[in-house]
Amino acid sequence: PQWLLQYQRPWLSGDLIAGLIVTVMLIPQSLAYAMLAGLPPQVGLYASILPLLAYAFFGSSMTLAVGPVAVASLMTASALSPMAAPGSETYLMLAVMMALMSGLIRLGFLAFFLSHPVISGFISGSAILIAVGQIKYLLGISLPRGEIIATVSGLFHQISSANRSTALIGVAALIFLFFARSRLAPLLKSMGMPATLAELLTKLAPMAVVIVSTAIVAGTGLDQSAQVAIVGHVPSGLPHIGLPQISWQQSQTLWLPALLISLVGFVESVSVAQSLALKRGQRISPNRELLGIGAANIASAFSGGYPVTGGFARSVVNFSAGANTPGAGVISAALMAIVISAFTGWFYYLPVSVLAATIIVAVLGLLDWHTLREAWTYDKADAVSLLLTFAGVIFLGVEEGILLGVALSLAVLVWRSSHPHMAIVGRVPNTAHFRNVDRHQVETLPGLIALRVDESLYFANAQIIEEKVENLIQSNTGTSTVLLILSAVNQLDSTALAMLTDMQKGLAARKITLQFAEIKGPVLDRLRSTPLGEIMRDQIFLSTHDAFLAHAHQISEKPDADRRPL
Amino acid sequence: PQWLLQYQRPWLSGDLIAGLIVTVMLIPQSLAYAMLAGLPPQVGLYASILPLLAYAFFGSSMTLAVGPVAVASLMTASALSPMAAPGSETYLMLAVMMALMSGLIRLGFLAFFLSHPVISGFISGSAILIAVGQIKYLLGISLPRGEIIATVSGLFHQISSANRSTALIGVAALIFLFFARSRLAPLLKSMGMPATLAELLTKLAPMAVVIVSTAIVAGTGLDQSAQVAIVGHVPSGLPHIGLPQISWQQSQTLWLPALLISLVGFVESVSVAQSLALKRGQRISPNRELLGIGAANIASAFSGGYPVTGGFARSVVNFSAGANTPGAGVISAALMAIVISAFTGWFYYLPVSVLAATIIVAVLGLLDWHTLREAWTYDKADAVSLLLTFAGVIFLGVEEGILLGVALSLAVLVWRSSHPHMAIVGRVPNTAHFRNVDRHQVETLPGLIALRVDESLYFANAQIIEEKVENLIQSNTGTSTVLLILSAVNQLDSTALAMLTDMQKGLAARKITLQFAEIKGPVLDRLRSTPLGEIMRDQIFLSTHDAFLAHAHQISEKPDADRRPL
Repeated sequence: PQWLLQYQRPWLSGDLIAGLIVTVMLIPQSLAYAMLAGLPPQVGLYASILPLLAYAFFGSSMTLAVGPVAVASLMTASALSPMAAPGSETYLMLAVMMALMSGLIRLGFLAFFLSHPVISGFISGSAILIAVGQIKYLLGISLPRGEIIATVSGLFHQISSANRSTALIGVAALIFLFFARSRLAPLLKSMGMPATLAELLTKLAPMAVVIVSTAIVAGTGLDQSAQVAIVGHVPSGLPHIGLPQISWQQSQTLWLPALLISLVGFVESVSVAQSLALKRGQRISPNRELLGIGAANIASAFSGGYPVTGGFARSVVNFSAGANTPGAGVISAALMAIVISAFTGWFYYLPVSVLAATIIVAVLGLLDWHTLREAWTYDKADAVSLLLTFAGVIFLGVEEGILLGVALSLAVLVWRSSHPHMAIVGRVPNTAHFRNVDRHQVETLPGLIALRVDESLYFANAQIIEEKVENLIQSNTGTSTVLLILSAVNQLDSTALAMLTDMQKGLAARKITLQFAEIKGPVLDRLRSTPLGEIMRDQIFLSTHDAFLAHAHQISEKPDADRRPL
Repeated sequence: PQWLLQYQRPWLSGDLIAGLIVTVMLIPQSLAYAMLAGLPPQVGLYASILPLLAYAFFGSSMTLAVGPVAVASLMTASALSPMAAPGSETYLMLAVMMALMSGLIRLGFLAFFLSHPVISGFISGSAILIAVGQIKYLLGISLPRGEIIATVSGLFHQISSANRSTALIGVAALIFLFFARSRLAPLLKSMGMPATLAELLTKLAPMAVVIVSTAIVAGTGLDQSAQVAIVGHVPSGLPHIGLPQISWQQSQTLWLPALLISLVGFVESVSVAQSLALKRGQRISPNRELLGIGAANIASAFSGGYPVTGGFARSVVNFSAGANTPGAGVISAALMAIVISAFTGWFYYLPVSVLAATIIVAVLGLLDWHTLREAWTYDKADAVSLLLTFAGVIFLGVEEGILLGVALSLAVLVWRSSHPHMAIVGRVPNTAHFRNVDRHQVETLPGLIALRVDESLYFANAQIIEEKVENLIQSNTGTSTVLLILSAVNQLDSTALAMLTDMQKGLAARKITLQFAEIKGPVLDRLRSTPLGEIMRDQIFLSTHDAFLAHAHQISEKPDADRRPL
């Protein structure tokens, strides 16, 4: 890759520091997100080595930090748990397959279908779902996986049977992490620490909690004496390179979730990478991002990992810590390789409730009120799409929610253009300009209805436009000409063409002439070759003004026809 | 209704004749379509009495003939056969419920989603499915209901076991009906008969076949001697008014098919009613059609019938036979009531293979090559939607096919506007007009990129527009201003707003000014209240020309800034 060929010495210190700090965040997160995905902890570590290298070689962002993330982990769990028992061999194999499939899917263009509000609602809904799902681990309650309502009511009923030591550790960790997130940086700054350093230090809080809680459990033996759930044995050693025996039989039901993971991952990565690149005046290429994240997932599959993508929080930290190139990712990968080779034993006493606390704090940071507020002010329909996607994810399920969101975006799109703005226009006196008769003092001609349609003409609005014209004719007796001004028509589909053809016939039967004006070049080119285009050859005007003058000329001639020659 | 209050004596003869001729068509069709729907023959007769009266009172078309039709019968069979055995009590109850539900559903606005090509592909696909499904009755082969491929291969394998007498009668009827449809009218005309009368006489061919074949079977006893399947006992007497015991438990799975029946029925009825109304310079009201067809279905449910709608062939005959008002429908209903009260015994010996022949000839008339050919010339994407809907109905199923079609229409819509036409424009010398630089000799200014986007801005094209602007900046070094000309933008959603906000930030970071020109009133009104609108307050120009002059002024001032004051 270019960055490697042109690598400059001064970049190294930034990359080294960023790589180190990201690794310190990545260790607890990779263990926690693997747990969230229903996978053994080492799978999270595997997914944090080769994918980082693959992205460093193929991606285009200088600062995107790739690896396991919360939302993709939830999506993995949601797709796989109906197919196999979490933690089982089959489940593991399916997770690898999911990474492979989402890496192979090159349908980034489908990301067009994911509107900003839908993505926002999806991420926020996922965050709630994840947070609620972690409470049982946080408090040491045993509850089967289930729908959110069952989970919440189960939590209420069983809160008294919580494991007190587990809950104490978990809640303490949670409080500390919340404190670190909201108060630590201001506190450190007020003690005179530089802002950037203070911000970065707060990101190390999860690691601090991991170390302290592990030490406490190891020292007190709470795992034995009080049944505090711990991570336990994590196999050490680098992952084997290669794919497991894959049964393609089972792949059919995985394509949709794999596609959704790849789309959501792609959209999120591009958005993070782009906003970071902008801050330094750099550029990213969406196509190379698609390649980079795809390569990372394939690398994850070949090293026993599960779906990965660009993470929001770690990328921001990577950026703030001064990462200059994807070299920072290479450093992280190397450090993770060292950790997994020699230090997995250190995670033995790590309490699961601390991982749950880490996850909860991380995902609550994904809740996006900002987009909701903005959409609510700017565009209620978008806000409703957001809220329904959010509710859909929580109450119907992860995939169902996002598909609902896509369906809603499309429905809003169709609904809007199915009720186009239409205006009857007249001439601004002594000019060639035409304006809405309801808003301006303009001239009209008897017998002429000049209607401007402010939307493309297609199946969803063809009927309404026809009705509008009919109503206008009914309420304007003596109409001899209907002029449609098509300046806003970017597309005209077969349904609209059929409607116009019928309209022309119907009007002609009543001795009313249909005319068009201001048709755009590409639309006109296609219209000309149709039977309607043939029939209307002499009724298509370049400008509204030309049509207006022609009509004025015609009515001034009519009295002449009655006049007898002398 | 108005037509009844203003009824005029001279209308009566036309209504009487039309009512009579339509009844003669309706008798074999109502028996045949009930069979197609998997229902006993009397249900078809029931659906041909009250629904006609209800439509006459509530509908708006003067000539639409309502009753059982082929496509709705197929849709009924397809929805109900997975739920109950055709012909069973439950099946009957579900059919009534389906009529009730499709009558109650008032979602005519959803018809927006059904584009012309999708409806055309759906009707043609249904016609093929119906025709293939009837071959076993035509030839007297016993085959279970099944997928089309299984049916076709079953037909091939079992053709030798066909009932020869049945097949003989069926094929003879089929040949006669085809002959009547294509050759009889020209023949009669060449013998000097008036065209309209000749056309109408050909429509009586099915009734002639019914009478002749019933007489043959009754006379020869082929039903006993050669096991020719006959209609058998049809209970006589008017239908009881009231609803059967309905289990709402089962209604959940019926809402989607009931909705689809009501939408397809509505779209088809309106289209037939409108084209007939146009020929006489009359008008129909889509809202009153929705009401009329809904009322007809509720009436059908209350009299033991099944879903009905406006039929194409019978409406055309009604029109040609001179129907002046829905009074013709009232006549038909009265005649059908007489038939069912006293003459159902006459159908005892009617061979089922003749009904199958009637259905096959009727539905082949629904095959719509015309729309396919037109769409293929005018708009390949629409033609592909049509063909895939057609194939979807045949190979995936009736509901699946139409839903696929809707999904395709939406996908085409999004796909098109996701690749908007964009043009860099310059000024036509000495005018205020701006044109594409690639097509015209125009003036441009150094440092100014003036880009016109010919599409609304929304989630599906936001990313592509951003990329286009970035590429333009990369290839035009020294750009100081990016001017977006938004004259074609009818909508601007939150996703596009977020994109423009990011774009403005990104450009500002590189000291490039973003400007807008020619924003439409409604779009501008909403934009003004956003943070982006605030920031860009002074960068929004009414016309491209204003923006052009401002830029020209700015560059002419720059050298001045370097000049020292004297």
